[in-house]
Amino acid sequence: MRVRLRLIVEDSPRFEFAASTLIVVSLAAFCVETLPGLSPTTMSALWWMECVTVLAFTAEYICRLAAAEHPWRFARSFLGIVDLVAVLPFYLSLGMDLRSLRAFRLLRLVRILKLARYNLALQHLRRAVALVREELVVFAGIAAVLIFVAAVGIYHFEHEQQPNEFASVFHGLWWAIVTLTTVGYGDAYPVTTGGRVFAAVVVLLGIGIVAVPTGLFASALSRAREMESPNETHRDGRRE
Amino acid sequence: MRVRLRLIVEDSPRFEFAASTLIVVSLAAFCVETLPGLSPTTMSALWWMECVTVLAFTAEYICRLAAAEHPWRFARSFLGIVDLVAVLPFYLSLGMDLRSLRAFRLLRLVRILKLARYNLALQHLRRAVALVREELVVFAGIAAVLIFVAAVGIYHFEHEQQPNEFASVFHGLWWAIVTLTTVGYGDAYPVTTGGRVFAAVVVLLGIGIVAVPTGLFASALSRAREMESPNETHRDGRRE
Amino acid sequence: MRVRLRLIVEDSPRFEFAASTLIVVSLAAFCVETLPGLSPTTMSALWWMECVTVLAFTAEYICRLAAAEHPWRFARSFLGIVDLVAVLPFYLSLGMDLRSLRAFRLLRLVRILKLARYNLALQHLRRAVALVREELVVFAGIAAVLIFVAAVGIYHFEHEQQPNEFASVFHGLWWAIVTLTTVGYGDAYPVTTGGRVFAAVVVLLGIGIVAVPTGLFASALSRAREMESPNETHRDGRRE
Amino acid sequence: MRVRLRLIVEDSPRFEFAASTLIVVSLAAFCVETLPGLSPTTMSALWWMECVTVLAFTAEYICRLAAAEHPWRFARSFLGIVDLVAVLPFYLSLGMDLRSLRAFRLLRLVRILKLARYNLALQHLRRAVALVREELVVFAGIAAVLIFVAAVGIYHFEHEQQPNEFASVFHGLWWAIVTLTTVGYGDAYPVTTGGRVFAAVVVLLGIGIVAVPTGLFASALSRAREMESPNETHRDGRRE
Repeated sequence: MRVRLRLIVEDSPRFEFAASTLIVVSLAAFCVETLPGLSPTTMSALWWMECVTVLAFTAEYICRLAAAEHPWRFARSFLGIVDLVAVLPFYLSLGMDLRSLRAFRLLRLVRILKLARYNLALQHLRRAVALVREELVVFAGIAAVLIFVAAVGIYHFEHEQQPNEFASVFHGLWWAIVTLTTVGYGDAYPVTTGGRVFAAVVVLLGIGIVAVPTGLFASALSRAREMESPNETHRDGRRE
Repeated sequence: MRVRLRLIVEDSPRFEFAASTLIVVSLAAFCVETLPGLSPTTMSALWWMECVTVLAFTAEYICRLAAAEHPWRFARSFLGIVDLVAVLPFYLSLGMDLRSLRAFRLLRLVRILKLARYNLALQHLRRAVALVREELVVFAGIAAVLIFVAAVGIYHFEHEQQPNEFASVFHGLWWAIVTLTTVGYGDAYPVTTGGRVFAAVVVLLGIGIVAVPTGLFASALSRAREMESPNETHRDGRRE
Repeated sequence: MRVRLRLIVEDSPRFEFAASTLIVVSLAAFCVETLPGLSPTTMSALWWMECVTVLAFTAEYICRLAAAEHPWRFARSFLGIVDLVAVLPFYLSLGMDLRSLRAFRLLRLVRILKLARYNLALQHLRRAVALVREELVVFAGIAAVLIFVAAVGIYHFEHEQQPNEFASVFHGLWWAIVTLTTVGYGDAYPVTTGGRVFAAVVVLLGIGIVAVPTGLFASALSRAREMESPNETHRDGRRE
Repeated sequence: MRVRLRLIVEDSPRFEFAASTLIVVSLAAFCVETLPGLSPTTMSALWWMECVTVLAFTAEYICRLAAAEHPWRFARSFLGIVDLVAVLPFYLSLGMDLRSLRAFRLLRLVRILKLARYNLALQHLRRAVALVREELVVFAGIAAVLIFVAAVGIYHFEHEQQPNEFASVFHGLWWAIVTLTTVGYGDAYPVTTGGRVFAAVVVLLGIGIVAVPTGLFASALSRAREMESPNETHRDGRRE
């Protein structure tokens, strides 16, 4: 009985698909609820949807608990806690604020990847991280120093001219992060000559440093695939 | 007769070039038409241009129908439907709105690539997609989760302070996509301390995740070329 | 005599350095001249600087003409015309507007690279372009279609709501280019729900397509170095 | 005695960790001090913190001086001067402005990397820079010319229409750098048709040129790891 339940809960693609769909639907409902000016009809419909999904999640939690070889171990596992946290607030009638925790359930979508071949892709990810871990740490360090220096520098140049936009070094940090990631909202930017020259130097040097880890990781990911499975790659080559 | 027509319609570079030019010209005319404050002279010139291009497209459609071995099959094919849809609205005197469907005709520009050597480049594209399909799916999944979490988070932090810019989680989604792709229009950005700290963390982690697929794909494309044609590459090497 | 002059003009690093410095100085002066609210003293100083640099450029032009084996061939060559065009406006007393043509002289800075080892780097560039020429053309085509479709789409969604920002498809093109290159000034952005959903899809698909050629080219550049000079690379490897 | 002190000061991970923590704490305090509207309590707490950290830094400086084999050589070394400069202002009662020099102390965080394996990552960085030095110089040159041409061009197109935003070629340079790095604050952007067409061409060509060095460097970094330690890589490959 428990074994059969476990087969369904843990290995059945259909169960996986239904649970995933339920998560997506309940997240969509959560988003819709935040829309301003909803009609009472929509709100009661959403309320009923909420009840149904929470009940379904509860049922799923109980099934998983019953199916687990060591129920207590499952209850204390990360996903077990996520499952509990996702339904508890509703029963505690606090419902509103904590429901966004359901976003954590999205993590379980990763399980879909476990099916079939995506397993290999995740293995490549892990391997790629292992390959460039040291370089990533070094670059994170360099980037942190650069962002800090940029923040202090821009604060010194722009504080007097724009006491609101660059009120403190923390405002400078916000500017430095928004600039060096090239997001550039335009809520704060240097206007003095000194500040602009400083910002120009920082941005020309900095975007490379902030962007290198991405290129590095993509590169490592390519290599990880090659290293792991030279035969499989060749098969790919012939398959085409 | 049909065979000769088919040779012209399907294989003649001149016909291909003329058809492509016609598409570009008619698209340019379509763009110009949307300009506000056109003089009556320009508008009537555009009207005549429209008539001429639609007639030419109709003639081309009839030629292709006549040249096809299985006319009915061509009429139901994707490009056949596109060709029909591009001229029908004009005859139905609705002309205005649907003409933008002509953009689909641009797809046929891909045919130019079929000529000669570009064939190989497209093959590399297909192969590169095949090589990294799994990683792209994994990253698309991770990116989707990240964007969703960013949207919910920023909504929680900024909703009270900026009820218009962050009116709902959907507004948060818009912010998350604009930010993590580093477009950063500046129509919505966090102003609270909590929101800014959250946004800084999200953007530093996130831009890598959103940008990795590009680097991955470029890398796969390089590998695809190497794998496919080691001899050709060597020839390239010597050719210089 | 001519041979000695040629040795100085074409091969002397000092002459090259002096000519490059002169170009940079005269360009800097050109930039300073555009500053609003210059004092009469500064303006007359800039005027004298202008006279001196133009005379020096003229002297250089005459030297090169005298040093050339085929003076007429040099006069008609690209760099010969640039040299002439850079000084002629001054003598024609039109001076002001055409001086920006001096920017073309910057092209001659490339000559510095000719010195010593940079030659190899340029060869790698050429080779890298040759390696990915086809893919670059294919991606340029796909990017052009994408930008056009994005422009037409955003025009349809936003024209009614924002008749000034999205006045025509050309305004849509400006939006599409600014968005897909992730510059995102914030002078035009969608505000309707339809427009935002459309923009989100376009930007998530599009930034990859617009950014891939860069990754592709960087990748090809790496490969070009490896292919060209396996021995040199190994020497590099041992040199460290 | 000196040898034991040196062992602690130069090789002890605990000492290194304590010194690093002190730097981070003192930098955080420096940031907090810049916040507007601090209460007198906070300000006096920060003042005491400042005293304690400066005393600790002084003690560290004296220890390092005492531990050094050649104290005078240490005093004139880069890190020795940094250590001195970081505490001197406080004793000179000028304290405020120069304290940001403490940011330089962050450079010493690099020392942490010396511990264990991060050494290798830094070696890869140096090697990667050596591998692509020539290409980086070439691209820096091309990018500089492009930015200059873009600045002059946009000045010509937009100066009349927007005499404040594009007041001089220097304003154009600011625009060019902000645009080609894709930051795009939105403080200055072309509004004329000519300026927009020019900007579109510049940005489509330019973002690649400005972004290539990043991809190039990431690529070289991958290669540097492979070249340096083929055995280590293989071990990595098996370790998983």
